[in-house]
Amino acid sequence: MKFAVCTKSGRALGLCLVTEEGVKPLSQILGIQVDGLYELVENWEDMWPELERKGSELMPIPLSEVKFETPVKTPKRNIICVGKNYLEHARELQGKTATLAGIPTEPIFFSKMAFETIGPEDHIIYETSVTNEVDYEAELAVIIGKRIKNITEADAEAAIFGYTVSNDVSARNLQVQHIQWHKGKSLDTFTPLGPVVVTKDQFDYPPKLKVECLVNGEVRQSSYTDNLIFSISKLIATLSQGMTLIPGDIILTGTPSGVGMGFDPPKYLKDGDIVTCRIEGIGDLTNKVVTKN
Amino acid sequence: MKFAVCTKSGRALGLCLVTEEGVKPLSQILGIQVDGLYELVENWEDMWPELERKGSELMPIPLSEVKFETPVKTPKRNIICVGKNYLEHARELQGKTATLAGIPTEPIFFSKMAFETIGPEDHIIYETSVTNEVDYEAELAVIIGKRIKNITEADAEAAIFGYTVSNDVSARNLQVQHIQWHKGKSLDTFTPLGPVVVTKDQFDYPPKLKVECLVNGEVRQSSYTDNLIFSISKLIATLSQGMTLIPGDIILTGTPSGVGMGFDPPKYLKDGDIVTCRIEGIGDLTNKVVTKN
Repeated sequence: MKFAVCTKSGRALGLCLVTEEGVKPLSQILGIQVDGLYELVENWEDMWPELERKGSELMPIPLSEVKFETPVKTPKRNIICVGKNYLEHARELQGKTATLAGIPTEPIFFSKMAFETIGPEDHIIYETSVTNEVDYEAELAVIIGKRIKNITEADAEAAIFGYTVSNDVSARNLQVQHIQWHKGKSLDTFTPLGPVVVTKDQFDYPPKLKVECLVNGEVRQSSYTDNLIFSISKLIATLSQGMTLIPGDIILTGTPSGVGMGFDPPKYLKDGDIVTCRIEGIGDLTNKVVTKN
Repeated sequence: MKFAVCTKSGRALGLCLVTEEGVKPLSQILGIQVDGLYELVENWEDMWPELERKGSELMPIPLSEVKFETPVKTPKRNIICVGKNYLEHARELQGKTATLAGIPTEPIFFSKMAFETIGPEDHIIYETSVTNEVDYEAELAVIIGKRIKNITEADAEAAIFGYTVSNDVSARNLQVQHIQWHKGKSLDTFTPLGPVVVTKDQFDYPPKLKVECLVNGEVRQSSYTDNLIFSISKLIATLSQGMTLIPGDIILTGTPSGVGMGFDPPKYLKDGDIVTCRIEGIGDLTNKVVTKN
């Protein structure tokens, strides 16, 4: 199944089931209020049989009439990110960052302090007084479906709810300036998510999906999610050691080579740029870049 | 004023006003439900005149009858931390960490993924299979009182709600293993907070308060908060550039020298150790260390 938080003419429809014919608000299918993804993830075992049974009865709202919003506007906790998790990306940054010269031997975890995430068609906005080195990073986002702690890699798949597309927008100057990456990853509007959340049963496991980033139509990043240095199972199992993960937690699994910082001279995002992060089977996450003084 | 979340014989009293005579639940003073600190911080302008007027009428519950809990059990967002913000601490780690050899010239920001924070007398629990290098870090925690973005240092004081004591418990092996510090700072029970939140008007600004950490009664850390390399105002103003801070956000301002990692050989926390983080004018935050296999 696919889900998205949608609006129609500015009116909130809450979380919707997405089909090729259109969207169906869960509140209408189930007869209870379902505003966001957390309510679905936390009650999935109860909700999905009902959705299967009643989902086909309701007439869909055509896709042309709705806007897709971020599936998780206000994350309950910071978003967990993984650094340098594609080999070619780790290589393109060699000599360009002081943090890690070589290829990681264990996952590099950091976090994004999303004040609010943004959705498709929302703007990535930054002040040029704060940063002039804003970069894109297309990534597969994994959404956790269960409360887990100290699990093995063999149990990781069962802990996944689904997947969405993310752009781990990054202010490179702030990553360097503040040594740890947290601040440079956490500016307002720097966490686009969407357009839909696809449940894990829709793909093989581990999923082998094409990940791309296009800037003004030019393909900058292109790889497959099975090129991850540390697999999704490895990431989840490692994170869960000593640390509880909860339903709705979001893990950005790392970005392929081709980021702006990897070019000489760097190709950072400028005012008016159109950035599309695309993952096959999930969709396009497109945002316009807007700068402010 | 001082506030704390309290229980009495295991029964929740919610947020309480704390005086020398005892505690007074805000729900009883104000006649409305006030479970936690967020409700107070977000409604401070309305609540404090009422508290001043009605606070003296209610009979206090004696301190001997209540247990102080963490003031923010489930933070809305990750806790923001500052690395190497006391000169002697930065010096004691020189040559011991690969992340930064010298003295920082800009604040080092990272975050703690508190699943749940813990309060006074709660246990710091860790699995020895995950880490055997658990360290203490006594720190002044600043609680943000207003929504702010792009503010100057001159406006930082007005954005503060108050202060509490924190222990930025750290798994040193995981900080090294995962390159970025996030995971090593984020294990369950690694964020003790409390015992009380003191509003900013109770201290001069910037506050000059003695910060200490004692392990089994031995003083390991001892400094003053005016020894911060980057002042509280500098931290808040810098964080707010391009990034919205919201009421209830917690900033741990850094730890003085004397951490376990600074000794040769290191003095890490062992099963049964009693750790007290103490800040004058706020109180003692004492936790027992418990290990599991």
